[in-house]
Amino acid sequence: MTGDRCVILCAGAITAADAAWAAIGPEDFVVAADAGYLRARDLGIRPSLIVGDFDSAADPGDTGVEVERFSSHKDDTDCMLAVRRGLARGCRRFVILGGLGGRLDHTLANLQTLGFLADRGCRGELRGDGAWATLVRGGSLTLPDTGGYLSVFAFGGPCSGVSETGVEYPLRDARLTSGFPLGVSNRFTAPQAAIGVKQGTLLVVTTAKD
Amino acid sequence: MTGDRCVILCAGAITAADAAWAAIGPEDFVVAADAGYLRARDLGIRPSLIVGDFDSAADPGDTGVEVERFSSHKDDTDCMLAVRRGLARGCRRFVILGGLGGRLDHTLANLQTLGFLADRGCRGELRGDGAWATLVRGGSLTLPDTGGYLSVFAFGGPCSGVSETGVEYPLRDARLTSGFPLGVSNRFTAPQAAIGVKQGTLLVVTTAKD
Repeated sequence: MTGDRCVILCAGAITAADAAWAAIGPEDFVVAADAGYLRARDLGIRPSLIVGDFDSAADPGDTGVEVERFSSHKDDTDCMLAVRRGLARGCRRFVILGGLGGRLDHTLANLQTLGFLADRGCRGELRGDGAWATLVRGGSLTLPDTGGYLSVFAFGGPCSGVSETGVEYPLRDARLTSGFPLGVSNRFTAPQAAIGVKQGTLLVVTTAKD
Repeated sequence: MTGDRCVILCAGAITAADAAWAAIGPEDFVVAADAGYLRARDLGIRPSLIVGDFDSAADPGDTGVEVERFSSHKDDTDCMLAVRRGLARGCRRFVILGGLGGRLDHTLANLQTLGFLADRGCRGELRGDGAWATLVRGGSLTLPDTGGYLSVFAFGGPCSGVSETGVEYPLRDARLTSGFPLGVSNRFTAPQAAIGVKQGTLLVVTTAKD
């Protein structure tokens, strides 16, 4: 690992397309979170580190990869353990695979893990189950047309000054709250969409076309 | 309809167990949201009303049930259209089936629909894909042991004075934010769990055991 990117493999489904999208290279710090080491094995990815309490998957045993074992009585999810390891190595960008589309509690916890990263000034992305998610806090983002849907949601509080261009339902200086999903299921109408938020944290989600 | 409960059938998967749990009766106002009318038909449920833009399912045509048709260019999701109809009929309790476990943007929008209801002093519940979700705003809730997992998350802002008893990891006067999923994936240790929040809105989620 020579870069500042941490790729985390969680226990949920990870397709070959997800792995190809992540374009994992030798410069990345790759952490398998608990049963995520099985996903790594299936995909032929060699993690830098395996962490977990191994209550949902057998202990990986001796695979030649460093393993950090934790009690299942802990406040951190397995994904959060992996995030902490990445932060400790100096990573500032996090790509989390296999953390969407399984149990709803896991999905919501992983979205809040993006919040944990944003609180530390780091960029986090989740990808899986045909979806991709990131947070934008008082800033902007440009996204190429995915051919699917683009949604924005207020995250952790209201958002003001929300703008969205290059989409079917553009927004201009809009206010979003957790009480109305105004920004759900937009469609791209340009080669790329631009999203901005002046105040608050915006959850940006793309999903595949049905 | 003689009661104050609205049952909404969304387009996502609805099992016979979901329908049995909802225990729909003649006193309920039952709204099928767009392709939800197909779920109703499959389950032998006769809705009071069908609403939607019918961009993802064929127009239901003449089924003997009132249909309200909307342009697909609208700010409301199909589920939100159904919620507005329920509110207009005086409903105060909402049970939404088939709104979890499909596309992530739909799931998140439906969770924010619970926020819309909470903002109006109404109780909303989502059930589907093995999960159940509701919001508690400055109040408390008692839940019987489901045999699965019980999670609580800060919703729309920080929560303070969060308590949880009857679970493996109890909480006492805790503070939750969207930046750390402290309350995820608890387990019941008593016949019922009690959850409370003094300030803020708590998202309570149960999921089935893997």
